[in-house]
Amino acid sequence: MPVITIEWLEGRSARQKAQLARAITEAFVEAAKVSPEQVWIVFRDVARADWAMGGKLLSDR
Amino acid sequence: MPVITIEWLEGRSARQKAQLARAITEAFVEAAKVSPEQVWIVFRDVARADWAMGGKLLSDR
Amino acid sequence: MPVITIEWLEGRSARQKAQLARAITEAFVEAAKVSPEQVWIVFRDVARADWAMGGKLLSDR
Amino acid sequence: MPVITIEWLEGRSARQKAQLARAITEAFVEAAKVSPEQVWIVFRDVARADWAMGGKLLSDR
Amino acid sequence: MPVITIEWLEGRSARQKAQLARAITEAFVEAAKVSPEQVWIVFRDVARADWAMGGKLLSDR
Amino acid sequence: MPVITIEWLEGRSARQKAQLARAITEAFVEAAKVSPEQVWIVFRDVARADWAMGGKLLSDR
Repeated sequence: MPVITIEWLEGRSARQKAQLARAITEAFVEAAKVSPEQVWIVFRDVARADWAMGGKLLSDR
Repeated sequence: MPVITIEWLEGRSARQKAQLARAITEAFVEAAKVSPEQVWIVFRDVARADWAMGGKLLSDR
Repeated sequence: MPVITIEWLEGRSARQKAQLARAITEAFVEAAKVSPEQVWIVFRDVARADWAMGGKLLSDR
Repeated sequence: MPVITIEWLEGRSARQKAQLARAITEAFVEAAKVSPEQVWIVFRDVARADWAMGGKLLSDR
Repeated sequence: MPVITIEWLEGRSARQKAQLARAITEAFVEAAKVSPEQVWIVFRDVARADWAMGGKLLSDR
Repeated sequence: MPVITIEWLEGRSARQKAQLARAITEAFVEAAKVSPEQVWIVFRDVARADWAMGGKLLSDR
């Protein structure tokens, strides 16, 4: 039943997302005894122009 | 005052979103006595490459 | 597959939530042809001390 | 440590986002004594076709 | 129209939240020309047992 | 830089959360080459009275 949301900078490959989806799902199955089909994972790629740290957009750093 | 967020797979039409916006707003007005203008709804379309179930991205299933 | 999140002020009853869950789910089944079991709805009750409008916490208005 | 998410209608400029990032970060440093590098801000631009108020998509109003 | 969500560790006072609500709202009014009443801010206090960094819950560090 | 949010039913133990935090962080370090300290994970426990599936609150099923 978990809904896992991953918010990060855009630029990762489909392969990296697939690897993470597999590893995270396995972790939930093992630690929380949920069925893999119940693990929903959503990736949200954020542009550098939409993420700020230290008071500055990453696109300006 | 409710903020309703809908996260789902991309591919729905503007007409489907308009129909849902109307029905959901009516449901809140009826069940929660809020004014329609106070019901804010945000749709977030997610690509199949960004949604995983069962440990796999939907674009790989 | 939709995940619907409802963020609003605390104080609504279980009955109001149940009524909304039913109405929203029906709206998705009708407008988006999803199965009811695939419609996940999460309510997030927010205290008046944690919601601000017009620059003021609602608990201070 | 705060993660600040800003969800609003698309159409704002990079300059407006930069100005907001700076002002919000300063507000957290002053009010909450956090280090600027610990203040993470994410902007999520929403299309008018994905935002409804009063039961209507903004693109239909 | 912005919805601003602040996710951080619990423990801040109502006074700090009020100060932030005021400063953030002013920043949006100035930078984005929105009306103060349209600026909605939600604080989400997170327990140390529910926040992890470096692979460890903060309550275990 | 990833912010990972986990929304699930309340009732898991601190030990399960700690195990998941470790495994998810390792997965990001391996797949995405981020530093562990940059992986922020937030757990949001949801009561059965606040989660609906199939049009019914889980507390009513």
